[in-house]
Amino acid sequence: MQNSDPSYKDLETVPNEYTKNNYEIEISIPEFNAVCPKTGLPDFGTIYITYTPNKKIVELKSLKLYIVKFRNRGIFHEDVTNKILEDFKRACSPKKINVIGDFNPRGGIKTVIKTDTLL
Amino acid sequence: MQNSDPSYKDLETVPNEYTKNNYEIEISIPEFNAVCPKTGLPDFGTIYITYTPNKKIVELKSLKLYIVKFRNRGIFHEDVTNKILEDFKRACSPKKINVIGDFNPRGGIKTVIKTDTLL
Amino acid sequence: MQNSDPSYKDLETVPNEYTKNNYEIEISIPEFNAVCPKTGLPDFGTIYITYTPNKKIVELKSLKLYIVKFRNRGIFHEDVTNKILEDFKRACSPKKINVIGDFNPRGGIKTVIKTDTLL
Amino acid sequence: MQNSDPSYKDLETVPNEYTKNNYEIEISIPEFNAVCPKTGLPDFGTIYITYTPNKKIVELKSLKLYIVKFRNRGIFHEDVTNKILEDFKRACSPKKINVIGDFNPRGGIKTVIKTDTLL
Amino acid sequence: MQNSDPSYKDLETVPNEYTKNNYEIEISIPEFNAVCPKTGLPDFGTIYITYTPNKKIVELKSLKLYIVKFRNRGIFHEDVTNKILEDFKRACSPKKINVIGDFNPRGGIKTVIKTDTLL
Amino acid sequence: MQNSDPSYKDLETVPNEYTKNNYEIEISIPEFNAVCPKTGLPDFGTIYITYTPNKKIVELKSLKLYIVKFRNRGIFHEDVTNKILEDFKRACSPKKINVIGDFNPRGGIKTVIKTDTLL
Amino acid sequence: MQNSDPSYKDLETVPNEYTKNNYEIEISIPEFNAVCPKTGLPDFGTIYITYTPNKKIVELKSLKLYIVKFRNRGIFHEDVTNKILEDFKRACSPKKINVIGDFNPRGGIKTVIKTDTLL
Amino acid sequence: MQNSDPSYKDLETVPNEYTKNNYEIEISIPEFNAVCPKTGLPDFGTIYITYTPNKKIVELKSLKLYIVKFRNRGIFHEDVTNKILEDFKRACSPKKINVIGDFNPRGGIKTVIKTDTLL
Amino acid sequence: MQNSDPSYKDLETVPNEYTKNNYEIEISIPEFNAVCPKTGLPDFGTIYITYTPNKKIVELKSLKLYIVKFRNRGIFHEDVTNKILEDFKRACSPKKINVIGDFNPRGGIKTVIKTDTLL
Amino acid sequence: MQNSDPSYKDLETVPNEYTKNNYEIEISIPEFNAVCPKTGLPDFGTIYITYTPNKKIVELKSLKLYIVKFRNRGIFHEDVTNKILEDFKRACSPKKINVIGDFNPRGGIKTVIKTDTLL
Repeated sequence: MQNSDPSYKDLETVPNEYTKNNYEIEISIPEFNAVCPKTGLPDFGTIYITYTPNKKIVELKSLKLYIVKFRNRGIFHEDVTNKILEDFKRACSPKKINVIGDFNPRGGIKTVIKTDTLL
Repeated sequence: MQNSDPSYKDLETVPNEYTKNNYEIEISIPEFNAVCPKTGLPDFGTIYITYTPNKKIVELKSLKLYIVKFRNRGIFHEDVTNKILEDFKRACSPKKINVIGDFNPRGGIKTVIKTDTLL
Repeated sequence: MQNSDPSYKDLETVPNEYTKNNYEIEISIPEFNAVCPKTGLPDFGTIYITYTPNKKIVELKSLKLYIVKFRNRGIFHEDVTNKILEDFKRACSPKKINVIGDFNPRGGIKTVIKTDTLL
Repeated sequence: MQNSDPSYKDLETVPNEYTKNNYEIEISIPEFNAVCPKTGLPDFGTIYITYTPNKKIVELKSLKLYIVKFRNRGIFHEDVTNKILEDFKRACSPKKINVIGDFNPRGGIKTVIKTDTLL
Repeated sequence: MQNSDPSYKDLETVPNEYTKNNYEIEISIPEFNAVCPKTGLPDFGTIYITYTPNKKIVELKSLKLYIVKFRNRGIFHEDVTNKILEDFKRACSPKKINVIGDFNPRGGIKTVIKTDTLL
Repeated sequence: MQNSDPSYKDLETVPNEYTKNNYEIEISIPEFNAVCPKTGLPDFGTIYITYTPNKKIVELKSLKLYIVKFRNRGIFHEDVTNKILEDFKRACSPKKINVIGDFNPRGGIKTVIKTDTLL
Repeated sequence: MQNSDPSYKDLETVPNEYTKNNYEIEISIPEFNAVCPKTGLPDFGTIYITYTPNKKIVELKSLKLYIVKFRNRGIFHEDVTNKILEDFKRACSPKKINVIGDFNPRGGIKTVIKTDTLL
Repeated sequence: MQNSDPSYKDLETVPNEYTKNNYEIEISIPEFNAVCPKTGLPDFGTIYITYTPNKKIVELKSLKLYIVKFRNRGIFHEDVTNKILEDFKRACSPKKINVIGDFNPRGGIKTVIKTDTLL
Repeated sequence: MQNSDPSYKDLETVPNEYTKNNYEIEISIPEFNAVCPKTGLPDFGTIYITYTPNKKIVELKSLKLYIVKFRNRGIFHEDVTNKILEDFKRACSPKKINVIGDFNPRGGIKTVIKTDTLL
Repeated sequence: MQNSDPSYKDLETVPNEYTKNNYEIEISIPEFNAVCPKTGLPDFGTIYITYTPNKKIVELKSLKLYIVKFRNRGIFHEDVTNKILEDFKRACSPKKINVIGDFNPRGGIKTVIKTDTLL
């Protein structure tokens, strides 16, 4: 199930029933992990996605499976965070969106990456 | 007691005695639950309602009974949050209002829905 | 000692020695209680008062005795919070003031009332 | 799905593969609710089950469905906690077991019920 | 409603349905208050009652009304805690019981009184 | 008021009304301070006193004034803690007592002194 | 690197230099994960290992690589916890050892498995 | 050492090496105490000082000795906070500064004084 | 390895792959230490670096080694914080950056230094 | 100052004035660090020392200087903890003592070493 690369096509959408309201959907995924391209060891972190939907909402079950696909991929922190931002934009064209990758410390140093279409 | 659907008519109101002041009423309801339309299993969460009353205030006992009516209804997170916003608007026409639905994690993913008449 | 109703006249004042500075005085009173007019049972909460003094400062001992007078009075949450705001305004004419009444949950529902002369 | 009463027969079991070790299984269920027999309103709480398995282990998915059956049943706190203890004993005959029912406050009073086969 | 003194007779009981099990009932009452006999000002605290019922259980609504009766009584911390212990013993003859009175600080000094029939 | 040395004679007592019960009195005093005999600078800490009274209870107001007398005395951490233990023993002859001195860190090192008549 | 199954042979050891002292080594591994055999989705948790070494100590880098080998293995919570206990016993023959598997909630239910050679 | 009154002259300064940068220095002093002018008893609190230095920085050792001088002075909360603000301004002429006095509760009421040259 | 002084040249960089996005990188280093130039004793603290990269990103392993070089250097809190800011600016020319040095208390006084290119 | 190896001779002692009481001295040192013998990088942790003094007490200033001597020594976690235990025993012959070394995580794994003369 985890063999292919995560792609924006994995993010299934449903119609937004409240397009006249500007409301926010905040999603937190504390069980993110991927593999460090340098060491081959797993990297852990939490991904936070906040977006104002336009006409489409990302379905959560498909989001979960999309996230699981990162598990055995070698990818850097900056790449993970920006790729999720770009994939969400292609999948559901939100009015605005930010994605935060909050990664567990390594060697006593902790890193958080914050992307935002408003910055 | 829980047989009918929750409706804005369930929200009884009392007159606001301080209409000249713009003040906020913040209500938190940590024991919200409803039924997931997909799985038939109960969904839990906390509902936060913050509003600036105009001429009417929603009476808390009636709010409690209104909330209890969601217990055995199958309804999505986005629908719950937006419906409460709309029902409050119809029941008491507040100067401004926001409603937040903060739902318990499912499958390791947590969702918060934020609606606000100012967005 | 607790027989009369709380009144702005109970709030004794002393001169503000630093009128040229705009500074804030924040007071928290975590042991507020009164009686619910509906049930006759005691209601508990915390009152937060923040004000920028003009020429007068409210003396804390008199504030304590003023607060104690609410103990056996039947009064609603909105009334408590707005009454304290009004009594402070009459007693010391502050440059600005806000009063927050943060009440303990009843029936699983928690209420906070926020008044502010700047709203 | 929630129509029948919860019964020890709902608790499916699987064989314990480590019967030679005395080990503990701790389960917490923070989303328990039932209906108060007096008021008809929902009661919320957390159920903690800790047991040392003998030859059988209770399967978690069946435990979840068993717990959901309490949702619309009128039952007192003491009854809930003791019934779960008895149903576990009948379903899997553990070497020892305790069940704790930690219920949300009502009227400013919080109750915890602790049952234990060792007491 | 709060005119008479609190008495063990105020504590109504119901039969214990599980007399063959030794189980504990823990009750916490964070909204206790009484009046300091020295200063006439209100004293606040939390009362914790833990008991193993014999044939009778104290009904919670009657316990609440019993506690409310302390509100305007002048009584010392040690007296409150020991009186509740004695009243419970007379009302329901528990197998064992302890009562803790955890009082808010006064003058920067905090006091906790712990009574226990096993000490 | 703070001129004399703290003495067990400062600890006034009242009769214990519940001598047949063995109960504990726990007192915490988070605002203790004294002067370091080496540097002349103030030392801060919290004093915890737990005792089972015999025929006498130490009155709290006198305890406070006794504690204040340490303020400008030069005294080591071990001495403070043991002296309070000894003074309590002389003042009220408790059945048992322990005194803990929990002092603020100095130079990145924190010290706690624990005395107990049962050790 | 993660292709083979985790085995007690992966746990390299070094001599214990302090065999005359009975001391404990506590290890926590908050980034454990494996695959649920039922759903194929990843399970997350924390593993706690506490042991009193005899003549050998498990080297931490080899422990880390051993743990990483569980990542893509389908294994139940009880099996994980007991297997680590058994592998440690075979690798370093400790005087005593316990292993705790504390797993993230699924479907609102959380499970902790506690094994201990002393139980 | 503590005999004279605290004065801005006690605050020794060193040159600011980074005058081209606007940076902030935040200092917290959790062990502040003074004497209440009304009761003669000690008052405890935390002083927070935040300033943007101009050409001079206050040396911390001298700040400590300056603070210690308040120990046996009778002074009100508002006076302490404003005096420290004024003394800092005279000693080092900062670009901006705020001083907060956060005092321990007395009689169940807590007070915080916030001064700021920007208010 | 720790013999030379920390220099901006120690901060190796890699190209920023997402120059079209303005995103933030937050780094926290809780294990910073250096030597106090006055006492010769070690000073501990946490360094927080937040920057929006331009064309280059600082590589974390080189950042760690750069930080370790401060370990046995005598340097003041203000110097550490400003030097890291300047070294980052020279090494990677970020669009914006702030550096915070949050140092452990000494003598009961805690200091935080906040530098920011936007101040 | 940090050139020689830490030795029990660095631990100066003073006479214990309360030898008739068995009391405990708990010391925590959150700013411990040393160098990992494998990587040459610094290791951080907290050392906890708890002992019942016999005729001698370890003087804290000398303890601090003793601890600082570990800073640039290459030493394993088990060695640090056991060495401090042994050095204390030689320096002051306590009635009993335990030493805990609680080290910061490395590679996502945290270790705590607990030594105790009573084990």
